Amino acid sequence: MATPLDDAALDTLFRTARSYNGYTDAPVTEADIRAIYELTKMGPTSANNQAARFVWVTTPEAKEKLAQFASSTNADKIRKAPATVIIGMDLVFNEQLPWLFPHAPTAKDWFPTEEARYTTAFRNSSLQGAYLLLAARALGFDTGPMSGFDNAKVDEAFFADQPNVKSNFIATLGHGDPSSIFDRLPRPEFEKFNQLL
Amino acid sequence: MATPLDDAALDTLFRTARSYNGYTDAPVTEADIRAIYELTKMGPTSANNQAARFVWVTTPEAKEKLAQFASSTNADKIRKAPATVIIGMDLVFNEQLPWLFPHAPTAKDWFPTEEARYTTAFRNSSLQGAYLLLAARALGFDTGPMSGFDNAKVDEAFFADQPNVKSNFIATLGHGDPSSIFDRLPRPEFEKFNQLL
Repeated sequence: MATPLDDAALDTLFRTARSYNGYTDAPVTEADIRAIYELTKMGPTSANNQAARFVWVTTPEAKEKLAQFASSTNADKIRKAPATVIIGMDLVFNEQLPWLFPHAPTAKDWFPTEEARYTTAFRNSSLQGAYLLLAARALGFDTGPMSGFDNAKVDEAFFADQPNVKSNFIATLGHGDPSSIFDRLPRPEFEKFNQLL
Repeated sequence: MATPLDDAALDTLFRTARSYNGYTDAPVTEADIRAIYELTKMGPTSANNQAARFVWVTTPEAKEKLAQFASSTNADKIRKAPATVIIGMDLVFNEQLPWLFPHAPTAKDWFPTEEARYTTAFRNSSLQGAYLLLAARALGFDTGPMSGFDNAKVDEAFFADQPNVKSNFIATLGHGDPSSIFDRLPRPEFEKFNQLL
């Protein structure tokens, strides 16, 4: 049995962590980004499909290229954040299964329809996006996940060479500026959205 | 800036954690389930939509009711696990936004199409499912996420009174039995599925 995390770690991951609208000037380095991915990739995916594809946007040019396709509020956040990651999904993720799930040589044929591939890619890239958010928090960073952007235009700008990859959501990364956030929004009581059978 | 988690915590969450096929006899209590939800609900969702709906299956009757709609391998895991959670999604989650996102009284009208509601519910309930998996690990439990079941039949059996709620995926919960797992599957190098711009 694994040792439970202490209160400080639970705060960092869940309880006092917040989504940030702005960040301090502290950078997010390539080493930081690689460290976040090294944790993210360990999270479980269905048949180890690793369906997410990540674009890490850190230069002023890349930020501007992404910001132009975001809602005006989100564009400003992207321009000012140290980094933003685009979480994409590979709709032909199954072609990678021969090496990701090597003990089942037919696994790549388990997703014969476009609908099955889309559902699996969307679900699992979302899971991996959540792992990434919590991995970043675990390493001391803050995040600002967002879905307010033009997916088709982002796909054209960032995944033109990979037509089977589609954007899912994006997230800013950095060290959060406490003055950029408001009071925490309400959270449901257990009884509201849970059944215990 | 938040303090990064220590190596033991990163191991518990990501590095040595595994998806389990079987568990010890140690129970998952109602208090454990509530503690997992109290962390899960703190994770970020778009406009705080909290689109996931959770059914925690702990009695022999409820396990059997769920197991009959799972693939044969998964059915056996469900019958033997101390608990299994069904992560569902509310396709009319937007009706809850007046109290979950109170500063924007029109937020419930931001999702006018079935497609917009489905995409947002599926993405965010998947994120919340991932928060749940990591919250369970953070509290010392192990998990076994699965999508091999008949969604329509599970919806009919568990969400008949909530026709707008659809199952997303399920996960067994308990204290993992190390003899139930195989070697870890390969993980991609950073360069394989990442671009740094």
